[in-house]
Amino acid sequence: MIKSKIIHPELISTLAKCGHKTKILIADSNYSFVTNSSPNAIIIYLNLSPGMINATDILDALLTEINVESAILMDTPADFNPEIYQEYKDRLSLEVEFTSLERYAFYNTAKSDDLLLVIASGEKRRFANIILTVGAIK
Amino acid sequence: MIKSKIIHPELISTLAKCGHKTKILIADSNYSFVTNSSPNAIIIYLNLSPGMINATDILDALLTEINVESAILMDTPADFNPEIYQEYKDRLSLEVEFTSLERYAFYNTAKSDDLLLVIASGEKRRFANIILTVGAIK
Amino acid sequence: MIKSKIIHPELISTLAKCGHKTKILIADSNYSFVTNSSPNAIIIYLNLSPGMINATDILDALLTEINVESAILMDTPADFNPEIYQEYKDRLSLEVEFTSLERYAFYNTAKSDDLLLVIASGEKRRFANIILTVGAIK
Amino acid sequence: MIKSKIIHPELISTLAKCGHKTKILIADSNYSFVTNSSPNAIIIYLNLSPGMINATDILDALLTEINVESAILMDTPADFNPEIYQEYKDRLSLEVEFTSLERYAFYNTAKSDDLLLVIASGEKRRFANIILTVGAIK
Amino acid sequence: MIKSKIIHPELISTLAKCGHKTKILIADSNYSFVTNSSPNAIIIYLNLSPGMINATDILDALLTEINVESAILMDTPADFNPEIYQEYKDRLSLEVEFTSLERYAFYNTAKSDDLLLVIASGEKRRFANIILTVGAIK
Amino acid sequence: MIKSKIIHPELISTLAKCGHKTKILIADSNYSFVTNSSPNAIIIYLNLSPGMINATDILDALLTEINVESAILMDTPADFNPEIYQEYKDRLSLEVEFTSLERYAFYNTAKSDDLLLVIASGEKRRFANIILTVGAIK
Amino acid sequence: MIKSKIIHPELISTLAKCGHKTKILIADSNYSFVTNSSPNAIIIYLNLSPGMINATDILDALLTEINVESAILMDTPADFNPEIYQEYKDRLSLEVEFTSLERYAFYNTAKSDDLLLVIASGEKRRFANIILTVGAIK
Amino acid sequence: MIKSKIIHPELISTLAKCGHKTKILIADSNYSFVTNSSPNAIIIYLNLSPGMINATDILDALLTEINVESAILMDTPADFNPEIYQEYKDRLSLEVEFTSLERYAFYNTAKSDDLLLVIASGEKRRFANIILTVGAIK
Amino acid sequence: MIKSKIIHPELISTLAKCGHKTKILIADSNYSFVTNSSPNAIIIYLNLSPGMINATDILDALLTEINVESAILMDTPADFNPEIYQEYKDRLSLEVEFTSLERYAFYNTAKSDDLLLVIASGEKRRFANIILTVGAIK
Amino acid sequence: MIKSKIIHPELISTLAKCGHKTKILIADSNYSFVTNSSPNAIIIYLNLSPGMINATDILDALLTEINVESAILMDTPADFNPEIYQEYKDRLSLEVEFTSLERYAFYNTAKSDDLLLVIASGEKRRFANIILTVGAIK
Repeated sequence: MIKSKIIHPELISTLAKCGHKTKILIADSNYSFVTNSSPNAIIIYLNLSPGMINATDILDALLTEINVESAILMDTPADFNPEIYQEYKDRLSLEVEFTSLERYAFYNTAKSDDLLLVIASGEKRRFANIILTVGAIK
Repeated sequence: MIKSKIIHPELISTLAKCGHKTKILIADSNYSFVTNSSPNAIIIYLNLSPGMINATDILDALLTEINVESAILMDTPADFNPEIYQEYKDRLSLEVEFTSLERYAFYNTAKSDDLLLVIASGEKRRFANIILTVGAIK
Repeated sequence: MIKSKIIHPELISTLAKCGHKTKILIADSNYSFVTNSSPNAIIIYLNLSPGMINATDILDALLTEINVESAILMDTPADFNPEIYQEYKDRLSLEVEFTSLERYAFYNTAKSDDLLLVIASGEKRRFANIILTVGAIK
Repeated sequence: MIKSKIIHPELISTLAKCGHKTKILIADSNYSFVTNSSPNAIIIYLNLSPGMINATDILDALLTEINVESAILMDTPADFNPEIYQEYKDRLSLEVEFTSLERYAFYNTAKSDDLLLVIASGEKRRFANIILTVGAIK
Repeated sequence: MIKSKIIHPELISTLAKCGHKTKILIADSNYSFVTNSSPNAIIIYLNLSPGMINATDILDALLTEINVESAILMDTPADFNPEIYQEYKDRLSLEVEFTSLERYAFYNTAKSDDLLLVIASGEKRRFANIILTVGAIK
Repeated sequence: MIKSKIIHPELISTLAKCGHKTKILIADSNYSFVTNSSPNAIIIYLNLSPGMINATDILDALLTEINVESAILMDTPADFNPEIYQEYKDRLSLEVEFTSLERYAFYNTAKSDDLLLVIASGEKRRFANIILTVGAIK
Repeated sequence: MIKSKIIHPELISTLAKCGHKTKILIADSNYSFVTNSSPNAIIIYLNLSPGMINATDILDALLTEINVESAILMDTPADFNPEIYQEYKDRLSLEVEFTSLERYAFYNTAKSDDLLLVIASGEKRRFANIILTVGAIK
Repeated sequence: MIKSKIIHPELISTLAKCGHKTKILIADSNYSFVTNSSPNAIIIYLNLSPGMINATDILDALLTEINVESAILMDTPADFNPEIYQEYKDRLSLEVEFTSLERYAFYNTAKSDDLLLVIASGEKRRFANIILTVGAIK
Repeated sequence: MIKSKIIHPELISTLAKCGHKTKILIADSNYSFVTNSSPNAIIIYLNLSPGMINATDILDALLTEINVESAILMDTPADFNPEIYQEYKDRLSLEVEFTSLERYAFYNTAKSDDLLLVIASGEKRRFANIILTVGAIK
Repeated sequence: MIKSKIIHPELISTLAKCGHKTKILIADSNYSFVTNSSPNAIIIYLNLSPGMINATDILDALLTEINVESAILMDTPADFNPEIYQEYKDRLSLEVEFTSLERYAFYNTAKSDDLLLVIASGEKRRFANIILTVGAIK
């Protein structure tokens, strides 16, 4: 076991391959992570069961190792208020820019060559998918 | 997402390869799971961080898909009372036989050709390693 | 053996990789499943012999693990009444939308990047090919 | 589709690699086919679900392509009368020699270098495992 | 050895992957089968020496396992009368449609994604290359 | 096409890897060439059909590229007079030493690390298997 | 060792994969043979040191196994008279057509899908790169 | 250990694959070297820690084995004066042409097929990325 | 870039695979790290040049991520006083047990299955090889 | 092209993997380099034709990159005086110890785990095989 907060071997090495501007997707349990992500991306499976591991716990772990520059969420129906959006914002600094994309535009961003890492979570809440853009470390 | 309790693709497929008498190791976060397991075993990493995912949560998930015939634990020092042993026993039926092995005998069992699956957990409690022998389903 | 209805290791793991909007093809025994499917798809062979395993038995098994949102069939000649269409509809809920495509449009859909799984059946009945779109699990 | 009775691509090619004296295992649904077979064997999965495909159906298909010289079954308890033994014998010619081995001797035979093919069936009946020795074709 | 007419393991399995509309190329000994065929095709080498195995012997073997719907030959010079064309036609049923393509159009057809199998023969006669389209088996 | 008598790419390259004392097996159509040969050997399939390609034709081709120092045949029953033995001897120089081994001793020689090449022929005659030891070229 | 003039295993097998119209590049010691050749080409390294093996020695060897239909050289500056051009022409028959291309047009030809073989030579002379088109053997 | 200045096995072999006009990227510690480089490039990791190994030390080593024809840097903000630019220029001959590209134009050059080698350094200074074009050795 | 002290992707992931009792070898620049280490070990090359990166710098980095339980050095001639031994001891806690082995006993330890990681350093000082045994993290 | 005397990419990288005590085999054109060398060795083919490249030219190149500690030759018949032995000795320093082994003892040494590199030469002279033990570089 290493002393870092993240001890998953392939997750820590893939994070170490992420640099400034690399994109990372945390996918919820219903996301089609193989067909709707870059064919070059590395997929890390942390989805033991529905509800385990949650996307917010995964984000907590990621932030001990990387900086985030911006984040992309998926548009929700007008009458749907996804509580997880606020949980994401609470974890990221005020300087992180959030944008929201329509479903298929979100899929296309997840398929771009800039996306290197997909983390399949067990997150059960709807509209929990989030794409992070890695920031530099100064 | 599938409707089973376990939704992790490689974990569910490896469990499906386990039959009567196959052995499975749930390793704690300090276990040397590569050098102290069968070279033919498939290693599934569920160790995001120390404490996540715990071995008992993993056992709960496994028991939704397989039967267990017997279990092997590691000998503890005389003055050490591992609470997790009781948690394991509470989850398994009364008919499951428990034995305990000295450290290197435990390692040798984990290296045997009968062991097909190693699950690297984030379990932080000491002496939490457990080898399960799969039972038949009637 | 696992306790799920589907015990085929690679089939259950590929289903676990299917998420909302992923497409699955059940091919009949004459379908050219390698050249007329997505090059990224995983092909599972359940075609022991003509007539074994039938597409309807395979669909029965799939529905124990996934939800289906819509289905695509192949256009038949005007004077051909494929009994298997009704068998498919009987197995799927009333909310599943069925559409039908001309032969080469069907092939093109099967070749799309959204298609992740091809199951080669032993189904002998004509026009039995079906493409399923996976639904979310709530 | 080819005109042979067996249309499964990998099964037919592996049978074509079997020659005089090669061994083949048809495993029932509880058999630990990975750990209790030769590491060089090719495993063909025909186990969609418990009960499908049965070992006897698989044997029927095999006999259209290969000759069998002898067969090995597993010892049963004294009070257990496995009906499937008779079904196996009915399918094979009178000249095929049948022997029976104790559980671990059976496992050891299945692990020998002479065993090239393992077929994972969905057979639910107990003690259904059978090892076939291929005969020559004159 | 299996009881089918074709006993070559990879050839029989690749034929088993060919379905309705799949294309197969039998190449003569001078054909550039790697650069002038689909990059996804499987190449089977039956070209021991010039003259062995001939394309017509290979076609005889193929017809024991597949149906042919149509065939494509290569245009010959006006004054060249390839005897092998008649030998091909004698082996195929009267319903098989024959067409002929100019050299580079023939190459392009051989490079199409529909072509799954290339058989490198030892055929020495000129203009002996033939592309077969597989028919359904009813 | 190259100008050598042997134009099969993998066969000619494997022969080029054979040096002084390397062993080569030409197997008849019933030989179990995977389980009864060295696990490191390269297997070349020239067995289109029973009777094609014959072992003697293959030997003719090999002798255009390599020298043979000695040959091993399989013991036959006392009342069996294998004509092919004489055909082999006619093709090899008088200086080539012939020996004959009992079935399982022959298998063990074929499994030795010195054996680099197995050619699966379509030879139908019984007891046609032959192991060649390559000689030096001066 | 085989009796052919070329005894390099991978070189002889790649030549055996070259047919009518396949292209071959002999690259000099400064040529960027990975980035300026077809990504599907096989690269054979015969460049022990600068000056060893020379391109002309390699061409001598190739001509014992293949026919050449035409050749492409690289344009030289007006005041540069590459002696190696004459050495190439002396080795090839009078019927071989020679053309010359500007640097980047040469690179593009070397990157075409028709080019199957790159031989990295140790040739030190400038402008020694040559692309050969294989001819048929009658 | 070899006697060259560079003793890293994969680095020296990749340099040996670089010829005239091949491009090499030395990336600083924040560069996204996987997503912003050619998918065909070989990535050599010399980034033990931030600050170790520095890009200038790596360039020193490279220059013992290759010639450089030109170099590309990344545009900096008007008020930023990157000291490392001068260090690069001091190491390269006066004949090396330097150009500077805007961020995304730099990324696109790094993604071109001409780029064969990426060296991930531990360089902490900003705007330290440099793309080298290899020159010929006369 | 990640925030850990070690940013080399494969090094950090291999460290994450090391658990209690795993062995790690830091090899000096002359060590035969392929033939004198476990065939299962992962070799990380940090040997740009003789003298870079030194073994002590590498040890500094490792100690930010792992605990060390004991260390093995190589016996030196009686009259040789390796300064690097003291440098190693200064970096490790007083509780770390040091032992020293004769050359071939050291090689045998490095070849044991317990050794998972070999780091090829550029260390030029003699007798600098060191084998670390990983300790648990409490 | 690099500036070292050896420019062959895989040869230079394999030499860089050789350390103190690693063994290297230069094989003559008749040597059975696959079956009579370590299964873990890397084989470099420099055998274009009989007589090209000679073993002595290869040794010349190797000595620009490595030191040699000792050398092993093969016993010759009493009446055979291999001139190449003297050529080898002339190239190596006086401190290099030469020994000679009987044929099968030589083969066994070549098969040992210490042997990492086999160079297949085109050397035609008899008894030209030589095993080198790499020395340290101080």
